[in-house]
Amino acid sequence: MPQFLDTCDSGFEGAFAALLGMKREDSPDVDAVVASIIADVRARGDAAVIELTARFDRMDLEPARLAFSEAEIEAEIAKVSGEDRAALELAAARIRAYHARQMPEDARWEDASGAVLGWRWGPISSAGLYVPGGLASYPSSVLMNAIPAKVAGVERLVVVCPTPGGVVNPLVLLAARIAGVDAVYRIGGAQAIAALAYGTETIRPVDKITGPGNAYVAAAKRRVFGRVGIDMIAGPSEILVIADGDNDPDWIALDLLSQAEHDESAQSILVTPDAGFAQAVAEAVARRLETLERRAIAGASWRDFGAVIVTRDLDEAAALSNRVAPEHLELCVADPEALAAKITHAGAIFLGAWTPEAIGDYVGGPNHVLPTARSARFSSGLSVMDFLKRTTLARMTPSALRAIGPAAERLAISESLQAHGLSVRARLDRLNEG
Amino acid sequence: MPQFLDTCDSGFEGAFAALLGMKREDSPDVDAVVASIIADVRARGDAAVIELTARFDRMDLEPARLAFSEAEIEAEIAKVSGEDRAALELAAARIRAYHARQMPEDARWEDASGAVLGWRWGPISSAGLYVPGGLASYPSSVLMNAIPAKVAGVERLVVVCPTPGGVVNPLVLLAARIAGVDAVYRIGGAQAIAALAYGTETIRPVDKITGPGNAYVAAAKRRVFGRVGIDMIAGPSEILVIADGDNDPDWIALDLLSQAEHDESAQSILVTPDAGFAQAVAEAVARRLETLERRAIAGASWRDFGAVIVTRDLDEAAALSNRVAPEHLELCVADPEALAAKITHAGAIFLGAWTPEAIGDYVGGPNHVLPTARSARFSSGLSVMDFLKRTTLARMTPSALRAIGPAAERLAISESLQAHGLSVRARLDRLNEG
Repeated sequence: MPQFLDTCDSGFEGAFAALLGMKREDSPDVDAVVASIIADVRARGDAAVIELTARFDRMDLEPARLAFSEAEIEAEIAKVSGEDRAALELAAARIRAYHARQMPEDARWEDASGAVLGWRWGPISSAGLYVPGGLASYPSSVLMNAIPAKVAGVERLVVVCPTPGGVVNPLVLLAARIAGVDAVYRIGGAQAIAALAYGTETIRPVDKITGPGNAYVAAAKRRVFGRVGIDMIAGPSEILVIADGDNDPDWIALDLLSQAEHDESAQSILVTPDAGFAQAVAEAVARRLETLERRAIAGASWRDFGAVIVTRDLDEAAALSNRVAPEHLELCVADPEALAAKITHAGAIFLGAWTPEAIGDYVGGPNHVLPTARSARFSSGLSVMDFLKRTTLARMTPSALRAIGPAAERLAISESLQAHGLSVRARLDRLNEG
Repeated sequence: MPQFLDTCDSGFEGAFAALLGMKREDSPDVDAVVASIIADVRARGDAAVIELTARFDRMDLEPARLAFSEAEIEAEIAKVSGEDRAALELAAARIRAYHARQMPEDARWEDASGAVLGWRWGPISSAGLYVPGGLASYPSSVLMNAIPAKVAGVERLVVVCPTPGGVVNPLVLLAARIAGVDAVYRIGGAQAIAALAYGTETIRPVDKITGPGNAYVAAAKRRVFGRVGIDMIAGPSEILVIADGDNDPDWIALDLLSQAEHDESAQSILVTPDAGFAQAVAEAVARRLETLERRAIAGASWRDFGAVIVTRDLDEAAALSNRVAPEHLELCVADPEALAAKITHAGAIFLGAWTPEAIGDYVGGPNHVLPTARSARFSSGLSVMDFLKRTTLARMTPSALRAIGPAAERLAISESLQAHGLSVRARLDRLNEG
């Protein structure tokens, strides 16, 4: 059974704080192993990648087979049904349309001093996308990572995806094709991250790496950060549903379970001012759990990390949600817009009971790569911005320099940076001569 | 002497690649020490911070004295001259005006399916700014970090700044005051980062940490990344100047030296199509070096990492600059705008010879916290965006769900995420009943 909390109970604050502080993931300390894998790939390139792939993925490769060939890709995607292909294409079109609106604008203006200032956005040249193998090999994640990169204008976009025992998900290859990915390498783990960051004989290095992965992948991303850009270190994900009593308990139960079924360390929280409704949802969850294919995973998540919180009112629910800063937030209430205005921290908000979170995972349009583990307090979901960078621009005229140069010289001297001051002074002196 | 390269030489490509790959910084492996400092601060809070400060900064503190008192701040800033204060205020006003233009817009629209989509920006609630002590304690960096945070709307903004032996720079406190910083703690090192990330009895944790620091600070930021947001791991910085022969060699020499004087591992590169001018600049650098207070530092940087590259033309200069992806790029040419259009990777561009880089360090308006060590390939300078996060919004209507829900259900099933599919199906069934 999940935790049942009531904000009117005297022990509530302690119990809620414990819920917030709960460690949901054992991060094994794989840092030393990962460091040696990265060093090995840097030193020996393809040979190291191939050996590590043989060991971890039981796959014998050779350099020419690290990437899927055109013929292999064609053969795999031919297996995809027309319905699945149509669904992926609808998703891709909607994700593309949403992200196209995120393209930021350049700016340039002249200020009162006569200085021309501004900035300019440009795409990262190349990006690598990590796609997990096995059960968590989600074609939807390929779309969610690759499409923003292509919208941003990334020239070269490659995917790495381990294929343990040679098994590949045809939908992953189709999603890569639809999204415009240039190459797919059948490698994974820390060795794939190292290959993307440093390059090998056959794999050119990229400038940024995105995408989720296991503890080895996460540790490797943390290590190569700085050498290349990374998106974020993803943690176990969560949903928080704020619902009034005027909802179908079964819908809300399924929404909670759609998070729980991802992972035993996922977290689903219902917050409602209606104690009777809370009970009804808990019963619906129990009923639905019995029939779910992934009931072992979803059941463990709901039992260990699930919570049902009864509040005095919706305002209190919003305040609690802001302390959680959930990755996904459903507002299943009569006036979701009014409640949304009270939300300060959330990765994505789903407004109204007709918007189950699963819509956002696939076809809504917004990105499903979102800040987990309370990081919505300080970070955002993946977007076009993650594949762009900004260059600032400044141009002084002689009169602008005359106006603001002396202050720069003064500050340089106060910081004991003499050459800084002299570089301004030399120009001011020329103006004074003239 | 710095390296002299000529793109017409047969050995150029190898020499340039070596220049790009040059390791300019010895990062001592302080990770184990930092891990234990962080664990100590988490376990013992203020007591650990105070002990570590006594050990590393030769400062005896008690909890009530971790933060500067109002009276101490007033007494320190009273020491600042009127001219220095006016210069800081001019800088602050210009930085504020520039960054105010960076505030991104919210968006919301209805698409063809009837779905309402959009996003909303909001500030991070609290941020901590690391300011190094000693020589590199720059008031300008306080402004450059704190003002974007305040423009973004960060509610609580604190500074940590070590004061070894009790020595504090009054200008740092004044800059913090001008920028609207709420508290300044006289602590530094990994212990200060740990205190900001996890909190102590007297220091409330923050959601994001920005600002430069030494190897311990950098390692600590890397470790707490995820628990809190961080800005970037700063490396040794660099300037690249593209200049035609129609420049005063002395100005360009001073611009190169204003980078070199920062740090022995800083890098200054001149790229010019005019071999005679290249020679004249090298001579001017040598001449200016003799009289600089920081000639030991600047001289070592110029000798070990400086480079003068003669190219066939300006187009080739731009192409080389793009491979360097310099933090600072000066375009001292007749038509800097035309050349800027060919630049794909640079942190900040300074257009024309009247715009020495030092203007950007202090009073230009754009941020001087910029991507170093070639990371302009994938990242941007500090901005208001670093203190904001975006929440995506989606709202389905029944008819929108009818239009796109089946595709979501299909993809959920293909990913073996049954509850995801059922959460959509339950709603579609209701619509079909109705």
